[in-house]
Amino acid sequence: MPQISQKGTAMPSSPVRKLVPFAEQAKKEGKHIYQLNIGQPDIKTPEQAIDAVQSANIEVLSYSHSAGNQSYRDKLIAHYNKLGFGLEDDNIIVSTGGSEALLFTMGSICDYGDEVIIPEPFYANYNGFATASGVTVKPIETSIENNFALPAISEFEKLITDKTKAILICNPGNPTGYLYTKEEMQQLADLVIKHDLFLVADEVYREFAYDGREHFSVLSMKELDNHAIMIDSVSKRYSMCGARIGCMVSKNKEVMATAMKFAQARLSPPTFAQIAAEAALDTPQTYFDQVINEYIERRDILIAGLKEIPGVTVANPGGAFYCVAQLPVEDTDIFAQWILENFDVDGETIMVAPAAGFYSTPGMGKNQIRIAYVLEKESLKKAVNILDQALKAYNS
Amino acid sequence: MPQISQKGTAMPSSPVRKLVPFAEQAKKEGKHIYQLNIGQPDIKTPEQAIDAVQSANIEVLSYSHSAGNQSYRDKLIAHYNKLGFGLEDDNIIVSTGGSEALLFTMGSICDYGDEVIIPEPFYANYNGFATASGVTVKPIETSIENNFALPAISEFEKLITDKTKAILICNPGNPTGYLYTKEEMQQLADLVIKHDLFLVADEVYREFAYDGREHFSVLSMKELDNHAIMIDSVSKRYSMCGARIGCMVSKNKEVMATAMKFAQARLSPPTFAQIAAEAALDTPQTYFDQVINEYIERRDILIAGLKEIPGVTVANPGGAFYCVAQLPVEDTDIFAQWILENFDVDGETIMVAPAAGFYSTPGMGKNQIRIAYVLEKESLKKAVNILDQALKAYNS
Ligand SMILES: Cc1ncc(COP(=O)(O)O)c(C=O)c1O
Ligand SMILES: Cc1ncc(COP(=O)(O)O)c(C=O)c1O
Repeated sequence: MPQISQKGTAMPSSPVRKLVPFAEQAKKEGKHIYQLNIGQPDIKTPEQAIDAVQSANIEVLSYSHSAGNQSYRDKLIAHYNKLGFGLEDDNIIVSTGGSEALLFTMGSICDYGDEVIIPEPFYANYNGFATASGVTVKPIETSIENNFALPAISEFEKLITDKTKAILICNPGNPTGYLYTKEEMQQLADLVIKHDLFLVADEVYREFAYDGREHFSVLSMKELDNHAIMIDSVSKRYSMCGARIGCMVSKNKEVMATAMKFAQARLSPPTFAQIAAEAALDTPQTYFDQVINEYIERRDILIAGLKEIPGVTVANPGGAFYCVAQLPVEDTDIFAQWILENFDVDGETIMVAPAAGFYSTPGMGKNQIRIAYVLEKESLKKAVNILDQALKAYNS
Repeated sequence: MPQISQKGTAMPSSPVRKLVPFAEQAKKEGKHIYQLNIGQPDIKTPEQAIDAVQSANIEVLSYSHSAGNQSYRDKLIAHYNKLGFGLEDDNIIVSTGGSEALLFTMGSICDYGDEVIIPEPFYANYNGFATASGVTVKPIETSIENNFALPAISEFEKLITDKTKAILICNPGNPTGYLYTKEEMQQLADLVIKHDLFLVADEVYREFAYDGREHFSVLSMKELDNHAIMIDSVSKRYSMCGARIGCMVSKNKEVMATAMKFAQARLSPPTFAQIAAEAALDTPQTYFDQVINEYIERRDILIAGLKEIPGVTVANPGGAFYCVAQLPVEDTDIFAQWILENFDVDGETIMVAPAAGFYSTPGMGKNQIRIAYVLEKESLKKAVNILDQALKAYNS
C-alpha cells in the first residue's frame, strides 16, 4: 500500500476534533451542549447579503476573476480607503476565506524550511497552513498573567535566523482576544524593517475592538508598505462564515503579483459568496454597533463569571470573541472530555476547546481552555455555572 | 525590501495571462472576440441548482462540516454508487472546486521533492499545485499523431524513481480531449500496483464522453482500492464553475484521514454552493443528453473545420470539450498575440490558448494551440474561418 506524506502525518488535527465523538454521544444521551469550542457566531447574517444572492439573476454560474469580481474589489478598496489605507486595485486579492489568504501568503513569501515567528497561543490552523506550505513555525511565548501582550522585542530577535521570512500576528487575537496597541505595532514595524522581514497581520476580527479602543491596522503604517500583508475575512465581520470569502492585502507589488499566480491556479473564489460579501459592505453601522455591544456584554458576563470560580485565571480580552482561561486541572484535554462524558447540570453540559492545540511548544497551555463567547448571555451564564460545578466535581 | 519565495518565482502563470491585455485592447477597439481560450462553458446552469440557493432559508450563514454537508455527501455517494463504486461516508471530502481536491491530494501523498508523473500536455494548473506543494512534475510525452493516447508503460517505468509517489492522469483530458480506454486504465493499474504508487485520476470531465464510448473510472477497479484517488467537480458537469465545489474520493482510509486534516485547516467548503451542488444532483438525464449532444455537434463542426485548414493537424477528442491543434506557425504564443493585435474578419477575431503552457518540457507544444469548444455552433464556424484566414495572412 502506498504511503501518505510525512507532511500529512505531521499535519495537526483540529484541537477539538478528539472531542467530537464524545459530544455526539452526549447529544445521543439527550444532553444539551453549550458549544463554546468554535468561533461560529450565532449572530444573524445581514439580510441584504442573503437577499443579494437570492435575487441575483444568474443564468450561467461562471468563474469570476481570479482576484475576485471587479465590482466587489472596487467596493472593498473603497471600504478600506475610508480607513486611510490608500489601497489600489492590485493591492488586493479576494480569497476563499481568510484561510486561503493565509495559504497564498505563506506560499508567496516562504520556501521549504523557511521560518515564521508567531506569538503563541495562536490560531491553531496556522500550524496546518505552515505544514501544508513546508514552513517552520517558531513560537514565541506570551503569558496569561500579562494578558497575552506582545513579548519583548529582544525575545523576537533571539529567534530570528537567516531562514526567518516573517512575523505573523493575529490582531485582535484568537484565542487570546488581545488587541495590540499602537506602540506594540510600532515596535513590530521597527523590527521587521531592521531585519527585512514581512509582517503578516491576521485582522479577521478587526471590527471587534472593545471598550472604545481602536484597532490599529498593519496597513496604517506607511513605512511598512513593502513589509505588511493583511489578512481579512467576511466570516466574523458579518457572521457569514459559510460564505468563504476573505482577502489578502499588501502594497508590495511583487508579493501580490506572486500571490496572483497562486490565485490563478485555483481559478476563482466562490461566485454566490462574492455577491453576498459585496452586498454586506453596505451593512449599516447600526448592525455593527448592536453586534459589538452584544459581544461586550457577553464578554463582561463571561469574564466576571470565570473570575468568580476558585482557581481560575482569565485574561481580559480587548477584542475578538474568545478568551483563554487557566483552570485548576492538570490536563484540559482530559477534563474537557470528562465533562462531555460524565457531567451535566439538569441535562445541560459544555464543550470547550483545550488550549494545548493553540500552542506549538509541546506541553504549553495544558491547563488552559479557550472559550468562544458566541452564545447568548443567558446561555453563557449557564455555561459558566456548569464549568464551575464541573471543576468542583472533577477536583473532589 | 523582503524577498518573495523562490517557489513564488517558479510558480507558472496561466498560459493565457499574457494575452489578456491584448484581448482587452482589441475589445477597446470595438472588436468582437470569440473566446476559445478558457474552459468556461456557455451552457445554462440547471435552474434547480440556482433555485435551491435562492429559496434556501438562511439566518446564519455558518461553516459547514469540513468534509462538506452531510446531506450533500450522502447524495453524492448515492450518485457514485449507482455507478457501482461502492463508496462509504469517509471515502469522500467535498472541496472548493476540483482545484482544492488536487491540492489536498498532493499534500496528503507527497513531501517536498517527491515526484508525480503526468502525461503531457496536461492541465496547466497541475504545475501550479505541484509548485505550491513542493512536488516535482515528471512529464511523459504523448503525441498528437497518436491522438494523445497513453504512452507505453515502459516509458513510465523509465521515469519511476524512489521519489515517485503517483501517476496523475486527466480522463477525459484537458487539453487533449483524450478518453482512456479500459485497457489503458488496466495497464496503469498494473503499473501502480507493481511499483506501489498512487493513481490519481482527474475526472472532472467524466460525463463528457462521446460517440457512445463509456468513461472508465479509476474507482471501478477493485484492485486499486488503496491506490486510486479520484478528483471530481461540479464546475463542468452542471456548468457551475463559479460554485467552487468539487471533491476528492478514495477508499484508502489513511489518505482520506490525512486529507481531512488539510480540509479542517481551511474549515469548510462554501455553503451556498453546496446547496446548489446538492440540488444539481437531481438534474434530469435529459439535461445531460442535450448538453452532450450539443458538445458532440460542436466538436464535429470544429474538428471538420480545422481539418480543412491547410497545414493544420488536429487530434480527435473522445471527451471533454477541448482539442489540441497543430498549426503551420513556429510559435503560437506570438501567433495568438498577433491575431488579437492585427487580425479580424469584419471586426471579429479569436482568442486561443497557446499550448506550450500545457507542457512542462521546455520547447514542447510551441506550434500547438488548445481550443475550447464552449461557444455555439455558429460562433465556432466563424471562429474556424477567422483562424483559417489569420493563418493565411500570417504566413504570407
Ligand atoms: C484568527 C483567524 N484567522 C483566520 C480564520 C479563518 O477564517 P475564514 O477562513 O473563515 O475567513 C479564523 C477562523 O476562525 C481565525 O480565527
Ligand atoms: C482538468 C481539470 N481539472 C481540474 C479543474 C479545476 O476545476 P474546478 O476547480 O473549477 O473544479 C479544471 C478546470 O478547468 C480542469 O480542466
